[in-house]
Amino acid sequence: VTPIVCFSSDFGLLDAWVGVVHAVMLDCSADVRVVDITHEIDPFDIRRGAVVAVTAVHQLPGLTHLVVVDPGVGGERRDLMIVTGDGTRLVGPDNGVLVPAARRAGGIVSAWSIDPILVGSPDPLATFHARDVLAPAAARLALGVDPSTLGEAIDPGSLAPGPFPPAHREGGYLVSEVLDIDRFGSMRIGVDRAELDDRVEPGATVEINSGHTTLHVPFGLTFSDVGDGEPVALFDSSGWLTVAVNGGSAAGRYGFEPGHQVRVLVA
Amino acid sequence: VTPIVCFSSDFGLLDAWVGVVHAVMLDCSADVRVVDITHEIDPFDIRRGAVVAVTAVHQLPGLTHLVVVDPGVGGERRDLMIVTGDGTRLVGPDNGVLVPAARRAGGIVSAWSIDPILVGSPDPLATFHARDVLAPAAARLALGVDPSTLGEAIDPGSLAPGPFPPAHREGGYLVSEVLDIDRFGSMRIGVDRAELDDRVEPGATVEINSGHTTLHVPFGLTFSDVGDGEPVALFDSSGWLTVAVNGGSAAGRYGFEPGHQVRVLVA
Amino acid sequence: VTPIVCFSSDFGLLDAWVGVVHAVMLDCSADVRVVDITHEIDPFDIRRGAVVAVTAVHQLPGLTHLVVVDPGVGGERRDLMIVTGDGTRLVGPDNGVLVPAARRAGGIVSAWSIDPILVGSPDPLATFHARDVLAPAAARLALGVDPSTLGEAIDPGSLAPGPFPPAHREGGYLVSEVLDIDRFGSMRIGVDRAELDDRVEPGATVEINSGHTTLHVPFGLTFSDVGDGEPVALFDSSGWLTVAVNGGSAAGRYGFEPGHQVRVLVA
Repeated sequence: VTPIVCFSSDFGLLDAWVGVVHAVMLDCSADVRVVDITHEIDPFDIRRGAVVAVTAVHQLPGLTHLVVVDPGVGGERRDLMIVTGDGTRLVGPDNGVLVPAARRAGGIVSAWSIDPILVGSPDPLATFHARDVLAPAAARLALGVDPSTLGEAIDPGSLAPGPFPPAHREGGYLVSEVLDIDRFGSMRIGVDRAELDDRVEPGATVEINSGHTTLHVPFGLTFSDVGDGEPVALFDSSGWLTVAVNGGSAAGRYGFEPGHQVRVLVA
Repeated sequence: VTPIVCFSSDFGLLDAWVGVVHAVMLDCSADVRVVDITHEIDPFDIRRGAVVAVTAVHQLPGLTHLVVVDPGVGGERRDLMIVTGDGTRLVGPDNGVLVPAARRAGGIVSAWSIDPILVGSPDPLATFHARDVLAPAAARLALGVDPSTLGEAIDPGSLAPGPFPPAHREGGYLVSEVLDIDRFGSMRIGVDRAELDDRVEPGATVEINSGHTTLHVPFGLTFSDVGDGEPVALFDSSGWLTVAVNGGSAAGRYGFEPGHQVRVLVA
Repeated sequence: VTPIVCFSSDFGLLDAWVGVVHAVMLDCSADVRVVDITHEIDPFDIRRGAVVAVTAVHQLPGLTHLVVVDPGVGGERRDLMIVTGDGTRLVGPDNGVLVPAARRAGGIVSAWSIDPILVGSPDPLATFHARDVLAPAAARLALGVDPSTLGEAIDPGSLAPGPFPPAHREGGYLVSEVLDIDRFGSMRIGVDRAELDDRVEPGATVEINSGHTTLHVPFGLTFSDVGDGEPVALFDSSGWLTVAVNGGSAAGRYGFEPGHQVRVLVA
């Protein structure tokens, strides 16, 4: 098995942070392969960090995922390792950024507080735990090291809560929110396939209601299942319910933005 | 030989797509090395994707190049492998994005339609063939697998045409277009060295005529062959005829944009 | 030891340059690991290139650092290798971009002019020495090749000067400049820890005077050592004196920009 670490952050690509974290992990072992998911999460945006992490673990279960959006770095919050029900390992700060990804990846099986000494950093720089604590832990987990040798077990119930809740039912509707707008303008809504699956039949339509706008969108498998410029609902690679416009931008046309509450009904 | 896959796309760096494709290829084999050419091709811009692919194969012949600009993903278009005259392998959708690169790399020797089953993806996600079909094929080709074991041979004559034609002669001129403006403002024109070579002598000047503007630019080998702020014509690393301004932006000064038709004459 | 090359440039991520340089180094040996520090240095900005290089060598001493901001490529300037006092190897053009990094990394022990023939490029493309001369040299140095086999020793005194001088004393003040504003709006000032260390005690405050603005900022170890929206002075991962605002942007609040002269006093 290739020891892969999937790495997301709000570091951006202007500064040296991303490269330094890569070098630290490669220095642990030349066998490690670091894959950049994205580093263009807005600064301090824990919510978007959590969305990216869900998207990554959905497609790459069983790997090690390092997720760094860490406004409280060096303060009270813990440096966390989580092992999930499907064998995914999550590494990041204890500020909720890992919680929705853990939920998607089969739930939390165990949680651990990383001990800097046990990852070889007795005196970590207070502004850069990603480099001195989180990355060395992630590299070791990818290489097969057991989390119990890198820190202390902690109560999963003591973790900071995630930045958005799971969808919940209200009347016939699933209530959730727009989680993300992708580069192509497709909107991802916080409802996953398991919550709708048996009702998504050929010819089904989803109603998406934001209070001021109501859309009725046919389900499809891909963008070109509808005419040019037409909307289509599908489950994209993120695993979330997605509304796209073939050859265009759904977000641009319908004016949705991340954080907008929506009510979803399959008819 | 290091099994290198050169990877270009219109995925951008905000989302997880690029990283997921990396992870899929590394999961095929830890030996694979994935090199990012660019992922900042504008969404759906097959033309710019083709220009980038030419630039990459020109400098890295004999490697495997994965090029994904794929508005029709999951629809009728085929997932393609092309083997070229100089041993380059091209992987991408059958929408023309690979065609100019194949021309630059010695022409099409064989073309293949990838069979998802043969690359281990019997049920590829319709919105993400890059992940489920194209990347697994590219990784295997880089590792030396024969394309005949990954799909069916197809008639090269049946491929979708490229997004721009080769330069052609009209009177004494070569007629082509501005293909690309690089970060430094240099303009690349769709005329390669072989089309001009014997006439590019020391002291030669190239005339570039766009209908509303006519430039006369001396040939040089590098930017500093002319004075600061002066224009120079050269063949840059893309292999295309390039007009640059030493220490400045040629596109900014002369107002050319990708797609502008130009007539080229060496005097 | 993993043979790591840390790579910075002003190439941006729109074009194929970065990927091509990666491929060239991997082609030297599959063992090489190329780590991207940043490629978003503004075109031709030698000053910012030097700041990035200092930041990288400060955190990754002993590795090989390739730094390419090279407006004079193919002209008179030399292709340089520098070995520093702490065993770091620097590769880049002889235009000053490597000089502050060499100072941070223990000073210049030896300097070398790369011979294109000795790195296997008898006829380098005049516009792309990064590909044909600098990258092959950097890969070989990372693999342990001795610089004396790749070029000629040169007099360190003959190198082009760096784009900014070390801090100097004037009265009780250290006079320097704002070197960089990071993604989070933190300002890095050209004073390193060694220049202030013994005066940075618990409870100390730094005065930063720019002529039109005077700040008094308490020292801390991390952002959350002060209240939300409050300023804090610390030494961040760059090793430079840094002024940050907890949860906000110091540069945005105080209006400092790279290049602004400042006078620094610890009280």
